[in-house]
Amino acid sequence: MWDALKRPDVPACLRICAGTDGSVTQLLEVLTGKTVVVKTLEQSVIKATSDIAKLLDIEVGDEVNSRLVTLDAGGTIYVLAKSLAPVKRMPQAVRDDLMRADIPIGRILREHKLETRRDILKMEIVRQDFFGNIPVLSREYRIIYENKVLMWINECFPVDDRWKM
Amino acid sequence: MWDALKRPDVPACLRICAGTDGSVTQLLEVLTGKTVVVKTLEQSVIKATSDIAKLLDIEVGDEVNSRLVTLDAGGTIYVLAKSLAPVKRMPQAVRDDLMRADIPIGRILREHKLETRRDILKMEIVRQDFFGNIPVLSREYRIIYENKVLMWINECFPVDDRWKM
Repeated sequence: MWDALKRPDVPACLRICAGTDGSVTQLLEVLTGKTVVVKTLEQSVIKATSDIAKLLDIEVGDEVNSRLVTLDAGGTIYVLAKSLAPVKRMPQAVRDDLMRADIPIGRILREHKLETRRDILKMEIVRQDFFGNIPVLSREYRIIYENKVLMWINECFPVDDRWKM
Repeated sequence: MWDALKRPDVPACLRICAGTDGSVTQLLEVLTGKTVVVKTLEQSVIKATSDIAKLLDIEVGDEVNSRLVTLDAGGTIYVLAKSLAPVKRMPQAVRDDLMRADIPIGRILREHKLETRRDILKMEIVRQDFFGNIPVLSREYRIIYENKVLMWINECFPVDDRWKM
């Protein structure tokens, strides 16, 4: 799985962001010296399909918050992030922040002092329409809270010179 | 506090390791492409002084595991890390790993699937005998588990060209 990170065309700063078990937003801010801006492209509550139910370990038909955002620093998009979160598992305050506002997930967890762990599931080089012809490093992980999946996240990082900082 | 990270003499890779709220060991492995080796310089169980009791929010005289290690990759020392952990707050398996073996703390937490958060307390440039005349970026943080301090950690990073990787 980690082999995708070792490809010679993957810049060091991208390797770092994709390899961390901490907050990507925080690393991007340290790397660029700029505030990371979250732009929400889509946000809705959906009913879990069987695929989604499997990812989140919930029942088919359970309510899931689905969110697609970009992380941008100084006008450059570094990450396209898709998240799926079972509504019933989110503490109310977290739910409000996640559904209402353009706040990075790492910051939401930190502000509400949630104790969590992150399990990285997959890491691979793919194509993704959003970034056109640029190859994309895609990783999937789950944030675990109280022994249950609080969130499934897929982050897509474009592999190009924007990471030479 | 974060100003120490912005000094122009602090290399980008060091900024990243000192700025993360995730595992430093994991970042070092991604950055160097090598396995990080922990070397234990000191390890003992001590009674908490009043200063230590304050850091850990325990009673004076409580047992504390004190550990001083270096993190080394490919023969280069990147970090000197001091940790203090109240013995009574550690799950037994964590305690065994921490007291017996040269295992990085991030890996111990991950392997025992502990859900935690990290609160960064301090970040500053200091001198530290261990690194002689090299300036040192020192940060202090606490790992919180079940709403209590599981561990206080001080990491010292030498500020020099070893981070140009």
